[in-house]
Amino acid sequence: MQNKEIRLASRPAGVPTLENFQFVETEVPKPGENEVLVRLLYISVDPYLRGRMRDRKSYIAPFEVGQVIKSGAVGEVVESSSPKFKPGDIVSGGSFGWRLYDVANADAVMKVVPGVSPTTALGVLGGTGLTAYFGLLDVGQPKEGETVVVSGAAGAVGIVVCQIAKLKGCRVVGTTGSDEKCEYLHRELGVDVAINYKTSGMHAALREACPKGVDVYFDNVGGEVSDAVLPLITNGARVVICGQISMYNSDEPSVGPRPQPYLLVNSAMMKGFIVTKYMSRFGEGIQQLAQWFISGQLKHAETIVEGFENTPNAFIGLFSGENLGKQIVKI
Amino acid sequence: MQNKEIRLASRPAGVPTLENFQFVETEVPKPGENEVLVRLLYISVDPYLRGRMRDRKSYIAPFEVGQVIKSGAVGEVVESSSPKFKPGDIVSGGSFGWRLYDVANADAVMKVVPGVSPTTALGVLGGTGLTAYFGLLDVGQPKEGETVVVSGAAGAVGIVVCQIAKLKGCRVVGTTGSDEKCEYLHRELGVDVAINYKTSGMHAALREACPKGVDVYFDNVGGEVSDAVLPLITNGARVVICGQISMYNSDEPSVGPRPQPYLLVNSAMMKGFIVTKYMSRFGEGIQQLAQWFISGQLKHAETIVEGFENTPNAFIGLFSGENLGKQIVKI
Repeated sequence: MQNKEIRLASRPAGVPTLENFQFVETEVPKPGENEVLVRLLYISVDPYLRGRMRDRKSYIAPFEVGQVIKSGAVGEVVESSSPKFKPGDIVSGGSFGWRLYDVANADAVMKVVPGVSPTTALGVLGGTGLTAYFGLLDVGQPKEGETVVVSGAAGAVGIVVCQIAKLKGCRVVGTTGSDEKCEYLHRELGVDVAINYKTSGMHAALREACPKGVDVYFDNVGGEVSDAVLPLITNGARVVICGQISMYNSDEPSVGPRPQPYLLVNSAMMKGFIVTKYMSRFGEGIQQLAQWFISGQLKHAETIVEGFENTPNAFIGLFSGENLGKQIVKI
Repeated sequence: MQNKEIRLASRPAGVPTLENFQFVETEVPKPGENEVLVRLLYISVDPYLRGRMRDRKSYIAPFEVGQVIKSGAVGEVVESSSPKFKPGDIVSGGSFGWRLYDVANADAVMKVVPGVSPTTALGVLGGTGLTAYFGLLDVGQPKEGETVVVSGAAGAVGIVVCQIAKLKGCRVVGTTGSDEKCEYLHRELGVDVAINYKTSGMHAALREACPKGVDVYFDNVGGEVSDAVLPLITNGARVVICGQISMYNSDEPSVGPRPQPYLLVNSAMMKGFIVTKYMSRFGEGIQQLAQWFISGQLKHAETIVEGFENTPNAFIGLFSGENLGKQIVKI
């Protein structure tokens, strides 16, 4: 067996390019004590990884140049020195190398939910779903009848947020980057109004879509979309900063209208959110998400890119919005 | 007895000028049922009144052109149709007209604390003190040993915030607009570092003053001061938006570096704050403030401008930082 891995060849300047990644042939590692050797089946590529490619303080340490990239993945156990797993088990973990084969600590992986697509472990029944669940419900605290705006609504997290907000009886307005995605959000997920930010006058479109203002803004995108949402927030509004994908490829501070005056006159709150803070409540979250999913109230949406060699491309594609829902590489 | 009042003659464009105000001779009103007639002694002039001079939605209705300006004041009861008050009582209220004599509902005024300067009812023992108390402790939630940065530190609210933060065992860094104010904050109030934003390189000065970062930022000013503070916030930091005086005189949205990325990577919170939301807890706040004040742990700072005719000037002076502590007009 030959192994292969994808390393950070250089730190991207702006939008990442293929030159920033390097494929290297390596050995298949041996599992140590309490470890499993996993043949990767699906790799999750996520916008937040762009932040780790920068040499800058954040909520998670940066990748080093010359080191393997890591993200969530699903794979099949090939060899196990843990009694918890045996060869053939399908497991998911939050930090696998972008490799054909990788070892992981047995405590850092878990078996996927049986009877459903294993890729849901990277989406609606994994970190993506949990991010939507805790970010919307715990930080955003939507109440029935309130208006929730979701930016990046057709992205991995956004799609789950939109659905949970509908389950909670909210009016849901989503912004996204294509008419096809708008159609999907509206027809398939019941989003009340979906707005294509590339072709709509955002201020007017949002004002029309949110006649009672915006009570909760779940923000995955930032930048000009947020500039258009913030003037519409209501008294006591909650703004969940989950991502700022519009800024991830810039090394310069993003400049725009300062949001503080809107927060001030509305006694509104804006909060940065990272799902790992909720680790102790993951069980509760997965249980609720699984119940909604299995009962058909919550749909999983994913875009599958085929081939390990296309992992960098799948990642780069996130920044032009190639994906509907979770972007996943199938090895 | 002749009465006089100060009306909004026109809405200011930019920094208010004397032309925006009109002095009008009027009748002394008669107190109706459950009302008191009050001869005003001290008028509170406050930055937030600038917002009310604009015809725009905010947390409080705008003043109408041609109508009297209203703010907090202290005065002497001249006539009372309420059994709660008798002539000679010194009372404070949150919404008196800028008048020599005004009537107020007996339920909207209260007797000042005996034995202390009645002007404290407009400052440390009034809305100003309560704003500092609830904004810092309830929204900011400082913990012992944390670093608290206060912008507008020598203003009415800022001075109280600095002192409460010191009482709570925090490292306190204040920004203000003159070396004299810096000296006052440092020597008289024990502020650890006071920075003159007009003469200091803010980024470097703040970095040096906050070697462990900024855990709580109590913001009265906004704009470029905040631009320099936000890159220094720590994980889990809390930003209290109490005022944005640097923007009050502009009708255009203020543009600068967007704060969302700093909130995101630090799971930090930014919240607009208005003290009236805490009305049900005012008793608790005043009790604690009075205890600190009477025991000498909390100082009252005020700048008294003499003469009713100087009320507009005293108000205008707020925007060039003429005041140290609470700006008050003595009639």
